[in-house]
Amino acid sequence: MRKICVFIGGRANYSSIKSAMQAIQKHPELELQVVLGGSGLVDKFGNLEKILTADGFKIDEKVYMQVEGDKPNAMVKTAGLGMLGLADVFERLQPDFVIVIGDRYEVMAATIAAAYMNIRVAHTMGGEVTGTIDESIRHAITKFAHVHFPANKEAGERIEKLGERPEDVFVVGCPRIDNVKRILDEDSSMPMDIYQTQGGVGPAFDLNEPFILISQHPVTTEYSEAKKQITATIKAAMKTGLNIIMLWPNADAGSEGISKGIRTYREFNPDAKIHVFKNLPISVYVRLMKNTACLVGNSSSGIREGAFIGTPVVNVGTRQNGRERGQNVIDAPDEENAVYEAIKKQLEHGPYVSEPIYGDGHAGEQIADILSKVEVPVQKRIVY
Amino acid sequence: MRKICVFIGGRANYSSIKSAMQAIQKHPELELQVVLGGSGLVDKFGNLEKILTADGFKIDEKVYMQVEGDKPNAMVKTAGLGMLGLADVFERLQPDFVIVIGDRYEVMAATIAAAYMNIRVAHTMGGEVTGTIDESIRHAITKFAHVHFPANKEAGERIEKLGERPEDVFVVGCPRIDNVKRILDEDSSMPMDIYQTQGGVGPAFDLNEPFILISQHPVTTEYSEAKKQITATIKAAMKTGLNIIMLWPNADAGSEGISKGIRTYREFNPDAKIHVFKNLPISVYVRLMKNTACLVGNSSSGIREGAFIGTPVVNVGTRQNGRERGQNVIDAPDEENAVYEAIKKQLEHGPYVSEPIYGDGHAGEQIADILSKVEVPVQKRIVY
Amino acid sequence: MRKICVFIGGRANYSSIKSAMQAIQKHPELELQVVLGGSGLVDKFGNLEKILTADGFKIDEKVYMQVEGDKPNAMVKTAGLGMLGLADVFERLQPDFVIVIGDRYEVMAATIAAAYMNIRVAHTMGGEVTGTIDESIRHAITKFAHVHFPANKEAGERIEKLGERPEDVFVVGCPRIDNVKRILDEDSSMPMDIYQTQGGVGPAFDLNEPFILISQHPVTTEYSEAKKQITATIKAAMKTGLNIIMLWPNADAGSEGISKGIRTYREFNPDAKIHVFKNLPISVYVRLMKNTACLVGNSSSGIREGAFIGTPVVNVGTRQNGRERGQNVIDAPDEENAVYEAIKKQLEHGPYVSEPIYGDGHAGEQIADILSKVEVPVQKRIVY
Amino acid sequence: MRKICVFIGGRANYSSIKSAMQAIQKHPELELQVVLGGSGLVDKFGNLEKILTADGFKIDEKVYMQVEGDKPNAMVKTAGLGMLGLADVFERLQPDFVIVIGDRYEVMAATIAAAYMNIRVAHTMGGEVTGTIDESIRHAITKFAHVHFPANKEAGERIEKLGERPEDVFVVGCPRIDNVKRILDEDSSMPMDIYQTQGGVGPAFDLNEPFILISQHPVTTEYSEAKKQITATIKAAMKTGLNIIMLWPNADAGSEGISKGIRTYREFNPDAKIHVFKNLPISVYVRLMKNTACLVGNSSSGIREGAFIGTPVVNVGTRQNGRERGQNVIDAPDEENAVYEAIKKQLEHGPYVSEPIYGDGHAGEQIADILSKVEVPVQKRIVY
Repeated sequence: MRKICVFIGGRANYSSIKSAMQAIQKHPELELQVVLGGSGLVDKFGNLEKILTADGFKIDEKVYMQVEGDKPNAMVKTAGLGMLGLADVFERLQPDFVIVIGDRYEVMAATIAAAYMNIRVAHTMGGEVTGTIDESIRHAITKFAHVHFPANKEAGERIEKLGERPEDVFVVGCPRIDNVKRILDEDSSMPMDIYQTQGGVGPAFDLNEPFILISQHPVTTEYSEAKKQITATIKAAMKTGLNIIMLWPNADAGSEGISKGIRTYREFNPDAKIHVFKNLPISVYVRLMKNTACLVGNSSSGIREGAFIGTPVVNVGTRQNGRERGQNVIDAPDEENAVYEAIKKQLEHGPYVSEPIYGDGHAGEQIADILSKVEVPVQKRIVY
Repeated sequence: MRKICVFIGGRANYSSIKSAMQAIQKHPELELQVVLGGSGLVDKFGNLEKILTADGFKIDEKVYMQVEGDKPNAMVKTAGLGMLGLADVFERLQPDFVIVIGDRYEVMAATIAAAYMNIRVAHTMGGEVTGTIDESIRHAITKFAHVHFPANKEAGERIEKLGERPEDVFVVGCPRIDNVKRILDEDSSMPMDIYQTQGGVGPAFDLNEPFILISQHPVTTEYSEAKKQITATIKAAMKTGLNIIMLWPNADAGSEGISKGIRTYREFNPDAKIHVFKNLPISVYVRLMKNTACLVGNSSSGIREGAFIGTPVVNVGTRQNGRERGQNVIDAPDEENAVYEAIKKQLEHGPYVSEPIYGDGHAGEQIADILSKVEVPVQKRIVY
Repeated sequence: MRKICVFIGGRANYSSIKSAMQAIQKHPELELQVVLGGSGLVDKFGNLEKILTADGFKIDEKVYMQVEGDKPNAMVKTAGLGMLGLADVFERLQPDFVIVIGDRYEVMAATIAAAYMNIRVAHTMGGEVTGTIDESIRHAITKFAHVHFPANKEAGERIEKLGERPEDVFVVGCPRIDNVKRILDEDSSMPMDIYQTQGGVGPAFDLNEPFILISQHPVTTEYSEAKKQITATIKAAMKTGLNIIMLWPNADAGSEGISKGIRTYREFNPDAKIHVFKNLPISVYVRLMKNTACLVGNSSSGIREGAFIGTPVVNVGTRQNGRERGQNVIDAPDEENAVYEAIKKQLEHGPYVSEPIYGDGHAGEQIADILSKVEVPVQKRIVY
Repeated sequence: MRKICVFIGGRANYSSIKSAMQAIQKHPELELQVVLGGSGLVDKFGNLEKILTADGFKIDEKVYMQVEGDKPNAMVKTAGLGMLGLADVFERLQPDFVIVIGDRYEVMAATIAAAYMNIRVAHTMGGEVTGTIDESIRHAITKFAHVHFPANKEAGERIEKLGERPEDVFVVGCPRIDNVKRILDEDSSMPMDIYQTQGGVGPAFDLNEPFILISQHPVTTEYSEAKKQITATIKAAMKTGLNIIMLWPNADAGSEGISKGIRTYREFNPDAKIHVFKNLPISVYVRLMKNTACLVGNSSSGIREGAFIGTPVVNVGTRQNGRERGQNVIDAPDEENAVYEAIKKQLEHGPYVSEPIYGDGHAGEQIADILSKVEVPVQKRIVY
């Protein structure tokens, strides 16, 4: 009975691993352990405790680690706190594998804690290329990880180039696509009850009308720019005359800049048809992506889920640089006019056909199955 | 005036960067900042404060971070504490570059702290291959570092294979060889006053007689084995009938196993001609390496400095696996007989001719010079 | 030349010690050291860096320590992080005295760090009695402190009862009153330019009209109640028909409850004449206290500064229980009706005459003077 | 079913609470939770994991927190680390009471963590008076504690003077005396098999001969003096011509000074009849106290257990200043001659009659019983 411990550092982590967690839970030879940390324990970023419990998961450990502050040193302290907490946690849980997801700063902390303690690390979403400190973190995690589950072929090849053994690299697709597939199979219509179920702030415009969806996060190397960037995006979207549904940013350095930008704009434009939601369930968000006229911002969802769903996407700024993308994405620099022009093009084009670049909806089962059998030495060695 | 901050986590770090620190100090366009941490602040591992001050360096910051305990989770907590301390330190010092050395767990902490805070990282001794968790740490540091100073050509090529830009990789040799060269140029004779100047414990045998030098550290993935391993090494060396000079281990997980092994052996063999020193100055240690009949253990010095000096070395166990080595090294598994047989061969062979695999003695100046001019973007991107 | 280090953990700390800092700065035999930490480094609670710099103070050290989260364990982690940072800071600064202010959880951390490191601790605002965990913290700090500067006679007597030596207790008054006196001496009129200089959110009603001032913080043992409590206070104030000026809460557990209460009320009552300010300069706040029809909430300012200024105050709930108060305060439980009735009484009464319970405006100079001369043993001993 | 959580920070903590733990374990209305931390997890200070397990206790949580280093700032960092770990631990365990023992720096950390998190704190060994930073810590813990279990009447009175409610103070005696009584009831003879069972280093002299027992710890405010002090004690004891049994020091700042003093003396006096033990089981130690000619040093055991056993004790230096003591103790300053003279007097006097100053052997049961029933508000308030 192998013990597979999943470290979840925030909302995005969870939706990127949920289907694998379900598959592990069901697998007769695996025992699932769940450790919650990072922004996943902070109410304003969408505390995950209730969500996981409602989804049928038992949270084995919680590690409070999120340090306040809108500067990069808060990221360092958060990661440091995470390591202090996780050292005790992994000692208690004694897992056979720790699954770490993606490339955020607190995920690095979980990776180091596990690797130093001679626990095997399985990494999802490695081998991709993007445009912030996440780029360095992702590849550094690869150098600690013992088993790799990249989301696409290109990423898998990059992991091998990084000196990892080919037999440890398994291209399974992204588990987020598993959820997307299941959600849309059930119901792909617009969530007309979203005001009732999700609350949010701002005027309640008619959801039958076309709308733009905005999801924009701070770019850590330019965190002081965050407020200016979100303002440009909002103004560009407003120019189309369409309604806007908007999401609150994640907990990165700069997030307070984004939040301030949103609040200030709404304060000065109280009548703007912008409705802002805090933490939409993935099922609601996917249906918004299916039904939006255009998704604008720099969320990876536009590129990953967007390719599968066929959402018209305007990808703003440098945050997703280098990430493999489909036909559905138009890139734009973070200037009001450029963003506006790109949105216009997407409105003219309309929905795209589905491209399964990031998987076909069966990643979770494959991850569970591989982890139940794979044999890897705890002591790694570069292949060249 | 660029500010170059050196993070020193212990004795070995210091001797591996000292010549570069001197060159930075002298360079008209550079300002040196020194941060001391890790085992470098713990008396029993050789507190470096006095040594650095005596060598003419000002210590700008001290970060106490070493957590007690003979288990891998102490390494995690030490690294976590280091990140917490260094976040404040780098915020105060605002360096243009942080130099990190090698591959120990607290060096990873300094690397992450700097990289998260958008400070450029220069890494020495990257691209090498060894046999413990250090292997993963070293390559992960490479993925965060902006400028690379590998010690030899092979290591430099490996760094490029890891996806780093060739223009950021500078093969300058190892600064430790700079010291070795300078020391032996001055005086390469046996340090006959070592009992007077260095103290140590154990009988004071005649230093004109041939002696074996033992320097053995714990191997982190096998820390419980540490005591057994050192005992095997001591017994093998005793079998030759030669006197033994021995060094205390570093602060890794397992170090207490080594210490206990040494103490137990001496307790039960009070008459054994073994003299144990705590922290020999590098100048004394190099002269011991020059004059020993054979160096036994798993210290990297046998392979690196040993090649330059021509010391006959028996390298025990897995710790230095994969490190490029010269003619002077015979590898042996950590079993008493195997080690004994290897020592015998080396005693028959005697000293080797010098091989400059790890540099020609001018690494420090090159590092200072390059750091005064190099232009690298803070945002990294893998080349493939 | 004695080095006097002031630890400032937040806005309130700063206004409670500013006049002493100025006096220390001017004193020929003292050198001032400033360490900033806690919520004082977090933008949303009013980052103090700019304010201190503008006031002519050099910040020697910054310690980021504020952990996110609306639960008591975030307070523990914040204090723990503070101790880790301050251990390095005090080692660097080597102060002769550390001044700690009041009774918040991060102040406990600074106290322990200094006392463990054999640095003398001077404590202001000790010996008072209130109604939350601050009560325990305050008296525990007294047991670590070497010199005591209580704000009033009653508090000084309590400190002596706690087993402190009478010769170490100096009743100097509260330094906050020093500021209040200076501010009102200069200009005690309503700050008519407050919208222009301080921004804030909410409608800009006529400042010539009478207004209620609300300043309410969470009560830590009842943090889940925070939202309900602030809502009751707002409703009671609204019932009077007067305009409302309101302040954002501090960083305690429960602060997000307060914030949510304020936001929700404004969302549902967009036309309510409530203007909310983030971090008013003390000079502006004191003039608001001078000109408000009634101050409502549970801020200590109502009781301390209020007594000196003569502000009519309705003190809500348990937070200020046990604090010595003047004629100007009417207490009310945190229920809408009770608060409303109390406000009505105060509106009928109008301004009160000044009572110097918490000092006469010369506390800062006395503190500096005493610290330049006082001799106390670092090893404390209870007197009974 | 009340959950009673015991925090054990080291060997001394454990022997001071063991009988209460047994009573809690047996109590039908109580559930015992055990948290191990501090030096209790460090091998060289006597790792308690095996001992507790052998005694039938389940360790619920382990928090690694001991920071290396022989300076007071290591104490601060250890306490800070402890708070970070314990915040997560108490969140998981959700105890009704946390029992904290005595006055060491990591016990303060456990106290704060519990109190900030609104968990009731029960404190044993409060109200006493001693001569180091422990003095401040002990009384500060009292100010956080909700229920007090002082070891004697005088201590109980002091707790009430500190402003605690009389109904929360229960003079139950010291649980260490419970163990002592049980041990001596079973077998009070000299442990003649001590070399076989406990190992230790140094010559194996005849245990039928009279011997001096030395147990000396560093005094934190004078930590640099530690080596000098232990050397004086050893020399004084050697002068008597008797054999010496000696104990390793605890983990306080200065402990390395003590250790170095012991090692150095033995190195230069290899024939001295001194046998040093690491961590004697309490059962062995008590029998040594019963049979020694004189106990020398500054351990509290001389004063507490010594009074009950009737051991002749020479109490050296300031560490136990102010602690209530019986006829069996002669105090001496830490100078060789003074210590020697005091030892001589004790050798002439011989064993003393038992004095039950610190309890009659039934403390543990009373503690369990009271904790099963006592009702105290979580919000404390000073009584005056």
